[in-house]
Amino acid sequence: MKAPPVTLAYHAGKVTLLDQTRLPQEEVYLDIGTPEAMWEAIKVLRVRGAPAIGAAAAYGLWLGVRDAPEAEGREDFLGRLEGVAAYLGSSRPTAVNLFWALERGVRAARRSAATTPAALKDVVLEEAEAIRREEAATCRAIGEHGLTLLGGVGSVLTHCNAGSLATTGIGTALAPIYVAAEQGQTIHVYADETRPLLQGARLTAWELQQAGLPVTLITDNMSASVMRAGRVGAVIVGCDRVAANGDFANKIGTYGVAILAREHDIPFYVAAPFSTIDFAAPEGDAIEIELRDPSEVTSFGQQHSAPEGVDVFNPAFDVTPARLVTAFITERGVVRPPFAENLARLRDGAEAVAPPAGTPSSRL
Amino acid sequence: MKAPPVTLAYHAGKVTLLDQTRLPQEEVYLDIGTPEAMWEAIKVLRVRGAPAIGAAAAYGLWLGVRDAPEAEGREDFLGRLEGVAAYLGSSRPTAVNLFWALERGVRAARRSAATTPAALKDVVLEEAEAIRREEAATCRAIGEHGLTLLGGVGSVLTHCNAGSLATTGIGTALAPIYVAAEQGQTIHVYADETRPLLQGARLTAWELQQAGLPVTLITDNMSASVMRAGRVGAVIVGCDRVAANGDFANKIGTYGVAILAREHDIPFYVAAPFSTIDFAAPEGDAIEIELRDPSEVTSFGQQHSAPEGVDVFNPAFDVTPARLVTAFITERGVVRPPFAENLARLRDGAEAVAPPAGTPSSRL
Repeated sequence: MKAPPVTLAYHAGKVTLLDQTRLPQEEVYLDIGTPEAMWEAIKVLRVRGAPAIGAAAAYGLWLGVRDAPEAEGREDFLGRLEGVAAYLGSSRPTAVNLFWALERGVRAARRSAATTPAALKDVVLEEAEAIRREEAATCRAIGEHGLTLLGGVGSVLTHCNAGSLATTGIGTALAPIYVAAEQGQTIHVYADETRPLLQGARLTAWELQQAGLPVTLITDNMSASVMRAGRVGAVIVGCDRVAANGDFANKIGTYGVAILAREHDIPFYVAAPFSTIDFAAPEGDAIEIELRDPSEVTSFGQQHSAPEGVDVFNPAFDVTPARLVTAFITERGVVRPPFAENLARLRDGAEAVAPPAGTPSSRL
Repeated sequence: MKAPPVTLAYHAGKVTLLDQTRLPQEEVYLDIGTPEAMWEAIKVLRVRGAPAIGAAAAYGLWLGVRDAPEAEGREDFLGRLEGVAAYLGSSRPTAVNLFWALERGVRAARRSAATTPAALKDVVLEEAEAIRREEAATCRAIGEHGLTLLGGVGSVLTHCNAGSLATTGIGTALAPIYVAAEQGQTIHVYADETRPLLQGARLTAWELQQAGLPVTLITDNMSASVMRAGRVGAVIVGCDRVAANGDFANKIGTYGVAILAREHDIPFYVAAPFSTIDFAAPEGDAIEIELRDPSEVTSFGQQHSAPEGVDVFNPAFDVTPARLVTAFITERGVVRPPFAENLARLRDGAEAVAPPAGTPSSRL
């Protein structure tokens, strides 16, 4: 195995993003120099995946204040910082990590004893760096916890991209695959292409190929057949937001895959940083679903695929009810049902809860 | 409502096909003059949909013998005809209507009293014309029977294209929608785009738009969300082959949609000419599934969507088990479970069987 690609980097004053809208044809790295450029990159999915968006936004916060005048007072600087945070927060309404990271950057500045803009700028930058490093460590912990569930599994199916391209580390859903590979265990990945934006075809297939790992690409509507043929040992997906009861929002199509997994008695795992859990949302219905532009559905890259003027429904996400989830995999451990109880226990510092003895794993 | 588009026409010695690979951008009609051209048109899906393929093949049979020398004896002519039939039959292995229509053309010639090539050619052409007319009448009957099930239904979801573009009439799955429109009842259609070849986006959306009927296009992975939102009153699809027990093969993705419909308590109807039932196939496992070229999955049109050299699985069809089907709609009537029994009764001339009183319709 080779190292998977790096989506977001910072070095000597420069923030660099791999432009994911141009994959897999072109591997282009962008220097992002302004909060407007970061807002646009998040909005049009040059950077995507909840954990990567969070870190990217934290750097965007720094980009928005790094030119603040040295004469500016502390409160004026903090006001400026909050303005930038509000602006960046408007780029993707569904990603809870975005708000979490922005809030963290603002809070770090507010809590610091720094009084000069120069010192405050350093605090904001160091917080972005910390978020990026912590997210990478989170990925690794998710990979290690996840692999305890995938020990004997020869193949998984995944939807969208929750790999290194979605994070600042080895991914969330793909993390156990990378950790397995490091340990000499090969897990074959079936990648749903994930219309309309084809993150599975363009990103998951590309990143696994770059890492030298086996992947088979299918269209979204083939997953039921692949499951029925016994080719899928487990489904593992990332997610954008988890409600307190375990309902979760993820890329459109995830809900259908979860139903199909249940129908075929295949365990369905959701890998996500603990920060993805939104305890303020009691259940899935509280999660706002972003509706995106119809042109994403009526075309395929530059190629028109539907007649002019046709009506389109294009939700970016769907909500999968908790009852279809076998387990959540977080950096703090594996969480089994009942989720409302066990997610709250994890928040409050208790250990992850083991399943009752004798419970069939596919129904947990 | 305007008339839906016509996919296959014959007039004064000319066979014309609407080239469906170029829709919706261009509306191009092809003069098909040789059996090779018809074989190619069937193979690359310029004409597709089981009923349309059958009629097209019957005309192809005529194209393959119309230049037979007048001096040829009857048996030599019939041998030539069988050679053409075998050749045309190699274009699409899954379409039972293809073999049925070719066999019918050969049998008509063999049973006729005609002795000269000129007279035999007329028999073959008249049989193709008869198949085309009968398929159109079949569509209408399916539409009328189907509408008895869709009376109060405001919207349906369909997969792939089983409309006028797939038949020589008003379609199979879309026939009840057209009959409803003629009677002043509007049924809103959700059309799955149907990757990899996008028949839903390119064909179903286009043909309904041409007819002036309401249609909303979604990607395949959105159907679960649309169902959960209560927007789908019934699912109705066509099919390529039905086994004697009611298992059926249709465009890849149909099986998944059937599972999702069951999960949401939405009735799932299969509309098909009676000739689609293959009583020689006892169950779905006996149906051969065509594997198609990986490039269909890794690109759309000229647009590459996946990295070079990625492994791909690309089955053209899937098999949906009979237990997920609420009813079959044929030109002979509506068939409810138990299918093995009731399909055989319909074959043997009995009336379609009504459901037992008090059975909830969504579970029939």
